[in-house]
Amino acid sequence: MTILTKNIPTAEIIRQAHESIEPFIHRTPIMTNRSINDISGARIYFKCENFQKVGAFKFRGATNAVLSLSDEEKQRGVATHSSGNHAQGLALAARIQGIDAYIVMPENAPTVKRKAVEEYGAKVIPCAPTLKSRKDTLQKVIEQTGAVTIHPFDDYRIIAGQATAAKELIEDEGNFDIIMAPVGGGGLLSGTALSCLYWSPKTKVIAGEPSGADDAYRSMKAGTIVPCANPATIADGLLTTLSVKTFGIIKNHVSEIITVTDEEIVHAMRTIWERMKIIIEPSCAVPFAALLKRKEIFAGRKTGIILTGGNVDLGKLPFR
Amino acid sequence: MTILTKNIPTAEIIRQAHESIEPFIHRTPIMTNRSINDISGARIYFKCENFQKVGAFKFRGATNAVLSLSDEEKQRGVATHSSGNHAQGLALAARIQGIDAYIVMPENAPTVKRKAVEEYGAKVIPCAPTLKSRKDTLQKVIEQTGAVTIHPFDDYRIIAGQATAAKELIEDEGNFDIIMAPVGGGGLLSGTALSCLYWSPKTKVIAGEPSGADDAYRSMKAGTIVPCANPATIADGLLTTLSVKTFGIIKNHVSEIITVTDEEIVHAMRTIWERMKIIIEPSCAVPFAALLKRKEIFAGRKTGIILTGGNVDLGKLPFR
Repeated sequence: MTILTKNIPTAEIIRQAHESIEPFIHRTPIMTNRSINDISGARIYFKCENFQKVGAFKFRGATNAVLSLSDEEKQRGVATHSSGNHAQGLALAARIQGIDAYIVMPENAPTVKRKAVEEYGAKVIPCAPTLKSRKDTLQKVIEQTGAVTIHPFDDYRIIAGQATAAKELIEDEGNFDIIMAPVGGGGLLSGTALSCLYWSPKTKVIAGEPSGADDAYRSMKAGTIVPCANPATIADGLLTTLSVKTFGIIKNHVSEIITVTDEEIVHAMRTIWERMKIIIEPSCAVPFAALLKRKEIFAGRKTGIILTGGNVDLGKLPFR
Repeated sequence: MTILTKNIPTAEIIRQAHESIEPFIHRTPIMTNRSINDISGARIYFKCENFQKVGAFKFRGATNAVLSLSDEEKQRGVATHSSGNHAQGLALAARIQGIDAYIVMPENAPTVKRKAVEEYGAKVIPCAPTLKSRKDTLQKVIEQTGAVTIHPFDDYRIIAGQATAAKELIEDEGNFDIIMAPVGGGGLLSGTALSCLYWSPKTKVIAGEPSGADDAYRSMKAGTIVPCANPATIADGLLTTLSVKTFGIIKNHVSEIITVTDEEIVHAMRTIWERMKIIIEPSCAVPFAALLKRKEIFAGRKTGIILTGGNVDLGKLPFR
């Protein structure tokens, strides 16, 4: 057993993570919808993390990471670079625990995202919109403040926190034939795979991925991480590449990755908005888009889909 | 006691209506949201009829009306003129009971509304976009088919059905200081007032109304029905004028009507979309807009708001 494997969260670690974050998170509702089932041919249970605090599942992992800090670390605060839901999740998780949060964010990030993070009481540090500038700026922040970096997914505390969404889904609705999640950096997908492995081992885990950022699809084929050179997709939460920790879990415990085009993502997103009357962001629509593309896999199957988030800029919607 | 009063649904009639429609409707969830409470200063419980079948509370009244028909009437089918949620509600209620539905709809009604009604199996009969043409066309349809007209609100079976939304809210969450609904023709508002009267008599009933269609506000002041000459508002479900039956209840059992501008409606709608991640239509945002306008009335009060519907054309949203 390698060190890597030794550190993968056990059932007990995930159970503890769940227990410790439960007072702070919403146990989000699970929705079903007859017309969605009619359209898809599957029996779908949507775990509505778009109703989670900060509007995304990321609050689970961030809360678990913050709660895992030592008292000395809490004094120093937390930091990350992100313009997405991890930033909001970490900002709110930190505020609730009364610790400082520093979020490095590209200066061209949507104002709505920046404002949301500031509303949660975090300090936003702007940087140039390059990965190098993000990393350099974060490094400077850490040197100046002593804050602890919380990576959005390459961190077993984060993975254990994200695993609790699928854990709740299984607890509330019993075993599934299939559970789906989108894949970007793989924090949610790897956590989902672990919860299925521990509490519903016959459940297949299938991911949806944008074809414009299909590193997970290609990494699974190659058996090693294959980053995308120029990822581009409307699903802006899924631009990131798998990490060693997430791929280590995904390669062993995820059955299949289905890629979908932006057009298919927007169609799936619109279908959920229209039929279910709930707001989901493009990244969140990816598993349902994958299901609609490959209906034969899901026909008649009890399928769980983790709806990951609902943070959209209402002034810039992709509908006509 | 006048004949009018004698016909107002009693507690027992509403209880029976609820019992008879319960197998067909969703018992919709009630949502709370901390940031909405922070913004408003009130303690708000949203009764989510946007998650009702057909995406609106109208399915309750329509189902009750259809179930109230005699066998002979069911043979003949039902008819109405409507381009809104009543049309969809009646269409689906009729289909579920296996009876025919004829919906007269102006030829300029949004395609999405027409298609929805047709999807529910009703026959759509187009007419010119005038009230006269709607009435004349409906009359012709009735002559040709023998169908029974189901008015969208001037009908005690409809009012009793709509009353069940507030009844569920009170059953699920106990007594309220205030319960709010929007007012158009007044079917929901009068039903809400009756349910409060019977099951939570200390609850004040307050309505929101678009200032561009403020017949209820002016009728309450005048003590008699004062129609709007040229109603115009983004809240297109609330363009109609109170009827004898609805005003008869509203004038005695509604405390106040607060009017709001289209700008206030869009702001309230956007706030609910952004904070709660649920889709509501402009008409549905009117009570929350009224609450935000007159916060002092609601400060610290346990307030129920019936979210009436979520049917919007995603290609034509009022957000920038």
